[in-house]
Amino acid sequence: MRTTIGIIGAGPAGLFLAHLLHRAGIASVILEARSREAVEQTIRAGMLEHWVVERMRAMGLGARLDAEAHFHGGITLQSGTERAHLDIAGLTGGKRVTIYAQHEVLKDLIAARLADGGEIRFDATVTRIEGIESDRPALHYGEGGVARRLDCDFVVAADGFHGPGRQAIPAAARREYSRRWPFGWLGILCHAPLSWPELIYASHADGFALLTTRSDSVQRLYLQCGPDDDVAAWPDARIWDALHRRLASPGWQLAEGAIFAKTVVPLRSFVCETMRHGRLFLAGDAAHIVPPTGAKGLNLAVADVVVLARALEAFLHHNRSDGIESYAARALERVWKVARFSWWMTAMLHRSPSEDAFDARIRAAELAHVMESRPAQAALAENYAGLPM
Amino acid sequence: MRTTIGIIGAGPAGLFLAHLLHRAGIASVILEARSREAVEQTIRAGMLEHWVVERMRAMGLGARLDAEAHFHGGITLQSGTERAHLDIAGLTGGKRVTIYAQHEVLKDLIAARLADGGEIRFDATVTRIEGIESDRPALHYGEGGVARRLDCDFVVAADGFHGPGRQAIPAAARREYSRRWPFGWLGILCHAPLSWPELIYASHADGFALLTTRSDSVQRLYLQCGPDDDVAAWPDARIWDALHRRLASPGWQLAEGAIFAKTVVPLRSFVCETMRHGRLFLAGDAAHIVPPTGAKGLNLAVADVVVLARALEAFLHHNRSDGIESYAARALERVWKVARFSWWMTAMLHRSPSEDAFDARIRAAELAHVMESRPAQAALAENYAGLPM
Ligand SMILES: Cc1cc2nc3c(=O)[nH]c(=O)nc-3n(C[C@H](O)[C@H](O)[C@H](O)COP(=O)(O)OP(=O)(O)OC[C@H]3O[C@@H](n4cnc5c(N)ncnc54)[C@H](O)[C@@H]3O)c2cc1C
Ligand SMILES: Cc1cc2nc3c(=O)[nH]c(=O)nc-3n(C[C@H](O)[C@H](O)[C@H](O)COP(=O)(O)OP(=O)(O)OC[C@H]3O[C@@H](n4cnc5c(N)ncnc54)[C@H](O)[C@@H]3O)c2cc1C
Repeated sequence: MRTTIGIIGAGPAGLFLAHLLHRAGIASVILEARSREAVEQTIRAGMLEHWVVERMRAMGLGARLDAEAHFHGGITLQSGTERAHLDIAGLTGGKRVTIYAQHEVLKDLIAARLADGGEIRFDATVTRIEGIESDRPALHYGEGGVARRLDCDFVVAADGFHGPGRQAIPAAARREYSRRWPFGWLGILCHAPLSWPELIYASHADGFALLTTRSDSVQRLYLQCGPDDDVAAWPDARIWDALHRRLASPGWQLAEGAIFAKTVVPLRSFVCETMRHGRLFLAGDAAHIVPPTGAKGLNLAVADVVVLARALEAFLHHNRSDGIESYAARALERVWKVARFSWWMTAMLHRSPSEDAFDARIRAAELAHVMESRPAQAALAENYAGLPM
Repeated sequence: MRTTIGIIGAGPAGLFLAHLLHRAGIASVILEARSREAVEQTIRAGMLEHWVVERMRAMGLGARLDAEAHFHGGITLQSGTERAHLDIAGLTGGKRVTIYAQHEVLKDLIAARLADGGEIRFDATVTRIEGIESDRPALHYGEGGVARRLDCDFVVAADGFHGPGRQAIPAAARREYSRRWPFGWLGILCHAPLSWPELIYASHADGFALLTTRSDSVQRLYLQCGPDDDVAAWPDARIWDALHRRLASPGWQLAEGAIFAKTVVPLRSFVCETMRHGRLFLAGDAAHIVPPTGAKGLNLAVADVVVLARALEAFLHHNRSDGIESYAARALERVWKVARFSWWMTAMLHRSPSEDAFDARIRAAELAHVMESRPAQAALAENYAGLPM
């Protein structure tokens, strides 16, 4: 098989890219290791930046989103039992917080891509990336036990943190920056009514908690836990007990409900420099991971491919290689801004096991500063709603 | 001897307090261990918050300050060789940065206090603080080899970090929060012309540097150094070499000059809770130390005594004790805000010996964020110019 752009991975990065290329008249094929069902059912991120929503609408993918997403004017920060509302829309000239789950975005992108006649090969695992220093790279993949090959002009590895893309860049040509945070997030989904009209980011002496929503009857909640905790260590009663304690606020009650999903993710920050080698491009989690505080992972993946699609279009349609050559630098500029923001939100809201009494007070003062100072809130809001694209 | 308020220390806290009490018709005596000459010649802080300048003018102490101080509209931040001007005045509705050395402030305060008939006993070292849990406390002090005693209604320990005041509070009644930073500041004074119209806070791979001014012909510069470095390890040539490297910027040249003072100070953050025990009050460095980044030490000391003078006046003139009882909580509210700001500026601008590649990039991104984002600049500016009093 042969195409112009061979894409590894049908996550947000790969699927958005295929759409953007299609609109520019550039052919692509996506190879995705998992089944369509698995991709469409994996629960991950839930918050879309303002410009991502605009892009989806502009691509004709706004109908279900507009009908089903929750649009919030702001977020709530909580320190101990005190709450402060941050008017994100008011602080950013009208940018609202859109709550629409990643797998819903993926369903919309996949359905539209297939309706456009686009090629997404599910259950197709890339095993080798060949010739990225030549102008005829190829992807070797296995599909139903059969070894196949996709020839292309460029390869985009949108294959997540554990995919083979990043490893295909020679170690000497990349530099990796990484931090494993000394905690993780226990996430649950439960059948319960809305307890609060917007997200609550809560910092408590016991640790962080986050209240988010999926629908009027399904809620998603998170608790700071150990980075290697087993879900078995978190029976439902322990979870509710911890959520009630960390989210407690005078005159308010968290609504409980039947928990139907539980996962633990360790928190990690990671950036790979470079994001291009020859004719291989990295996009999304393949090149960088941010901790989920601030909900930037999906949005940053999409930002990468917006830059990349423009670069590929300039090369293929106008024979200009500057976009390709500056892709890594341009993408990384945003990556480090978002890595900083996610680091800052994470450091401010979580209790580190090694924190001493001075650190704890300074951390509380940092949160109090944001809860009180309008300029500090505006600085948070411009990042939270999404930096300009 | 007997007075209403016995004050230990003729630093900014003690002297400002004596003036505020005098204006409220309350008698005080200051006992100061050092000579007047030593007090008036010790080089320390150099930047006054907006409201401190206003207070000095309101107390009739504005004439020399207005004639001799430098008033800057903003500050310059430097990352590597890139500079950004922060328009502090524009971001805060007109609050300018006032450069007027601490010992000049002290000269003005001492002269005016003596002119008012106020009592400041220099070369008088307090050796024991007695009866703070009674309503008749006393200060025992030595003066010219003679042991003396000052009886008073209240004791204010404005005696700096190493004074006896804080230790007079029983250990069980106070909690101390402290951090020793893994670096110090080497400060120099030199005879050289102005190199740049405002302060430059520079973050460089080698470490932090700060350019400030004293007058058109005397400049004050600082370099990040080891916390226990000896000035002997810093011959002039090494200092100029480091300053040229860290402050380098295209098309700009740092003017050299004869160095006539060199000191090393280790950086420390420290907060003592509580700031009152019975009839003993702590004010200024006696209760808290901030690292000098952000230039808050003197200003915070003055803020404490503004709150304290009001509390004492309410008690002595109107028989209301609520101000005295809430003094510690009220003062500490500002203390933690300022401790946070100083911590943040310090962490952002200094290279810690233990920082890894990820930390370094995040720190650079934090500084870039402030250099680019107007809300982030506004958040810095409102703290830098001075929180409302
Ligand atoms: C458990 C979890 C929870 C998260 N929660 C949040 C959150 O709450 N908020 C937030 O902002 N972000 C969250 N994230 C991050 C966010 O989901 C990611 O940033 C986002 O999915 C990145 O998109 P991507 O397209 O780059 O990568 P991915 O979504 O990871 O997609 C990569 C795709 O490549 C495929 N692939 C991998 N290897 C191969 C191969 N060899 N051959 C073919 N295909 C391959 C994978 O199957 C996958 O479908 C979470 C991530 C995880 C893992
Ligand atoms: C070397 C140095 C450099 C500094 N540089 C800066 C800077 O660049 N920027 C900045 O913002 N801040 C700086 N500071 C901090 C700033 O100078 C202080 O925060 C400020 O002086 C605090 O004022 P204070 O009145 O509380 O204490 P101090 O100014 O320390 O005054 C306390 C006084 O009490 C006296 N005393 C102590 N013990 C006794 C006793 N037993 N009996 C009688 N008297 C006693 C002392 O002699 C002293 O005069 C610096 C501090 C130091 C030490």
